[in-house]
Amino acid sequence: MRITALSGGVGGARFLRGLCDVLGDDDQVTVVGNTADDIWLFGLKICPDLDTLMYTLGGGIDEQRGWGRSDETWRAQEELAAYGVQPTWFGLGDRDLATHVVRTQMLRAGYPLGEVTAALCARWQPGVRLLPMSDDRVETHILIDDDAAAGRRAVHFQEYWVGMRAAPPVRGVVAVGVETATAAPGVVEAVLEADVVLLPPSNPIVSIGTIVAVAQIGQAVRETAAPVVGLSPIVGGAAVRGMADQLLAGLGIESSAAGIAEHYGARAAGGLLDGWLVHDDDFADVERVAQLGIECAAVPLLMSDGAATAGMARAALALAARLQC
Amino acid sequence: MRITALSGGVGGARFLRGLCDVLGDDDQVTVVGNTADDIWLFGLKICPDLDTLMYTLGGGIDEQRGWGRSDETWRAQEELAAYGVQPTWFGLGDRDLATHVVRTQMLRAGYPLGEVTAALCARWQPGVRLLPMSDDRVETHILIDDDAAAGRRAVHFQEYWVGMRAAPPVRGVVAVGVETATAAPGVVEAVLEADVVLLPPSNPIVSIGTIVAVAQIGQAVRETAAPVVGLSPIVGGAAVRGMADQLLAGLGIESSAAGIAEHYGARAAGGLLDGWLVHDDDFADVERVAQLGIECAAVPLLMSDGAATAGMARAALALAARLQC
Repeated sequence: MRITALSGGVGGARFLRGLCDVLGDDDQVTVVGNTADDIWLFGLKICPDLDTLMYTLGGGIDEQRGWGRSDETWRAQEELAAYGVQPTWFGLGDRDLATHVVRTQMLRAGYPLGEVTAALCARWQPGVRLLPMSDDRVETHILIDDDAAAGRRAVHFQEYWVGMRAAPPVRGVVAVGVETATAAPGVVEAVLEADVVLLPPSNPIVSIGTIVAVAQIGQAVRETAAPVVGLSPIVGGAAVRGMADQLLAGLGIESSAAGIAEHYGARAAGGLLDGWLVHDDDFADVERVAQLGIECAAVPLLMSDGAATAGMARAALALAARLQC
Repeated sequence: MRITALSGGVGGARFLRGLCDVLGDDDQVTVVGNTADDIWLFGLKICPDLDTLMYTLGGGIDEQRGWGRSDETWRAQEELAAYGVQPTWFGLGDRDLATHVVRTQMLRAGYPLGEVTAALCARWQPGVRLLPMSDDRVETHILIDDDAAAGRRAVHFQEYWVGMRAAPPVRGVVAVGVETATAAPGVVEAVLEADVVLLPPSNPIVSIGTIVAVAQIGQAVRETAAPVVGLSPIVGGAAVRGMADQLLAGLGIESSAAGIAEHYGARAAGGLLDGWLVHDDDFADVERVAQLGIECAAVPLLMSDGAATAGMARAALALAARLQC
């Protein structure tokens, strides 16, 4: 079976690890990683979601934090701060730093991000084919109030998310460069030729939202013959992880399992989803999602351990199988 | 008193620390650092001599090794090796890495190396004005035998010195780019306007040799009204530190205190030196150096501790004072 997933960082990566656990040797997984939260810092190209996917699936992740390398130290970062270099809010570990140095060197030598990612994965052997959504630069910026100027200003998503801890109300989200970005080599084919397309429980705006905002990818998801099944990142009206609620609220999207399904829309109506999994406790949303023309089921959606996560993967594949009949 | 020194790394830096110890608050020291052993590695610009000078004079050096940061760790480097990135022979510490990251970012933003060095020194406060010899790229390459090709090949000085531990016989030394390099802002003035010009016990070929090979600097040293006093890096026929002997032998230069003085030559005869200090044990060289037209004295030249190094600095200044009379 060929499975293609569009994924953000921590939540998506954990789900995909569970997916790999339940698949056989003949199954092939392609992961299209969000690159819109990539950032140039200190002259280095940092790809948080690709790295989280690579480290999680390759056995190098810090399990507690969910991002960055295990057994990490922060000495170079302390020195950067001692030089007075900004910003100081980004978590740049010594081991992680090597990944950014290798990536930056290859990018500056002219390799596209997809080839750089493949080179890094040659070490990590994540067990999936990991592709960036695009080789082009796309950066999500968040519009927030600028009290000094009595207006608004845009900050890079990482600054908003990590530096400001998502505190300021969101007035808008702009994925700079996404209109002209093309899908990285292999991405469109992976979506069109898949047997199943999965949307893991990633952020619907700044992760999966930016991936499908690349026109070629959004079109491929709408056109593929494969069933498209997603898993709600919202459980009981709140984001399981991260601070997605503020983002959703700022964009007028209802922070519920059904709200996200509505935002994605049914493929039959020009949207993205054929199937949608909501958490057990959100069973009341099932009927509402079904009325959108999306096959919906309520299952446990908390990735509390490997077994629970594997169960979610099985449920997603089971829903896809029902849709294929 | 205005003192200008042309310096390489470890030996020069230690001498200059001793010099600063014996100077008063009104004395001003300008150090022109060799940049011909600079190297781009992993997409980062590394300036070993400037860093050794900055760390040594700014209190950040590893005293045992003589280079790199105190209390250093090597985790990023281990990760680079795990990615299979070459070379693996260069010692790249986690704390040190931050210096290279800051420098590289500033260089890529368009700042010349002199301004970058000043920015880094704003943190380290080395107590001297540290200038690179040139903002232009100059790289010392060593010619060695290439047995496979039955010919010769050039390797970067760092690869020869660190990677090969200076084992292959030296067939030639080429400072690539030095013919067209111009002195960094402030360097020529610092030499011309100095009261004393010092050549610390640095390598005469790949440190001081490449500095004066920048035409404007060589000319300034030959023309300055200040006395030019050097200290022999060769004691008892052997380099005090490092592997300079092989270099000298490969170039047909006698590896002795007098041999180096002869290589530099007397200013009166178009060379670089007015005065030359040799080690006590090399007192037999004094007469030979004097015959070159260079004022020479034998004093203790082993930097065994701070007091001994301060004594060397006092001896150099005393010789300069005699030459000024």
